[in-house]
Amino acid sequence: MPRLWTTTIEEHRRTVQAAVLDATADLVAQHGLTSVTMSQIAKATGIGRATLYKYFPDVEAIMITWHERQIGHHLDHLAAIGSKGGGPEQRLHAVLNAYATIQHGHRNHPLASLLHRGPHLLQARRHLRDFFAELLSEAAADGHVRDDIAPSELANYCLHALDAATELSTEAAVNGLVAVTVAGLRP
Amino acid sequence: MPRLWTTTIEEHRRTVQAAVLDATADLVAQHGLTSVTMSQIAKATGIGRATLYKYFPDVEAIMITWHERQIGHHLDHLAAIGSKGGGPEQRLHAVLNAYATIQHGHRNHPLASLLHRGPHLLQARRHLRDFFAELLSEAAADGHVRDDIAPSELANYCLHALDAATELSTEAAVNGLVAVTVAGLRP
Repeated sequence: MPRLWTTTIEEHRRTVQAAVLDATADLVAQHGLTSVTMSQIAKATGIGRATLYKYFPDVEAIMITWHERQIGHHLDHLAAIGSKGGGPEQRLHAVLNAYATIQHGHRNHPLASLLHRGPHLLQARRHLRDFFAELLSEAAADGHVRDDIAPSELANYCLHALDAATELSTEAAVNGLVAVTVAGLRP
Repeated sequence: MPRLWTTTIEEHRRTVQAAVLDATADLVAQHGLTSVTMSQIAKATGIGRATLYKYFPDVEAIMITWHERQIGHHLDHLAAIGSKGGGPEQRLHAVLNAYATIQHGHRNHPLASLLHRGPHLLQARRHLRDFFAELLSEAAADGHVRDDIAPSELANYCLHALDAATELSTEAAVNGLVAVTVAGLRP
């Protein structure tokens, strides 16, 4: 096959997949995961049921792919914040704050307990831990973060402590949580 | 039925139930949850299969009851530590340290991901949060803990931050985690 042709097929596949993910997320948000069928999803996407099965075996597989896409967006967002200007301390705080805000946004999410297991999430958490550890290591070199504990362990602490944001009801409480978590990092 | 008789039956039931829980925990530790059958459990307990079914509908129900018993022991242990002598700060630190040690003990536990959902755990966490909040409130009144954040929110922070102990490999790292978490609580 000529290169251009492959690219077009690949692009088409990606467009269809994205449309399936969007349609499924909408349907699940409206009706709940257990009452959404592959037929409904095919109809909402505007493709045939047989075509849908060429992309995904079942609704759960679609939701996991959707979740992977969401996680990808979150990681991109955090990476963008972490590479903005400012000193290491400033960037660290901005990233921790953004992570707490993301976790806070997941509170009461009906799919959280279902999707927040799964190997795809473990990988994202490992990625996040490395990213946090890098920021922490830079901030420690600058004397803004304690250096008596390994950056990877501090990163682990930050991830867990900020997960508490999923149980907070106000933005003020989230800011308080970030302040407490950051206070634990001081030299 | 005379009172004495009822007590004896009740005691007998409790003894049998405890024996079932012990035998099941042993079998599951040896063979894994999915390969243990009700027949094996009845045999290991030394009771008939029909009798076992009068106590529990299936292996999972036994494991959940076993887990409830474990959680009860942990809560008793923490309560005992929290009511020992010493000032509020000292008792708070002892309890947080003990909780981190319990969580650390669960690392790599094959049943953790299975049992650590479930409504019985939510209730235990609520209980723990109240208990932590009480200790934090006393320590704050003594000037050892910050009072700009509600004790219940600080308790939530402690619970989540110390859960990071499940991912640490050494006791030294657990001590470091407790130190960082406690540092976040300072006024």
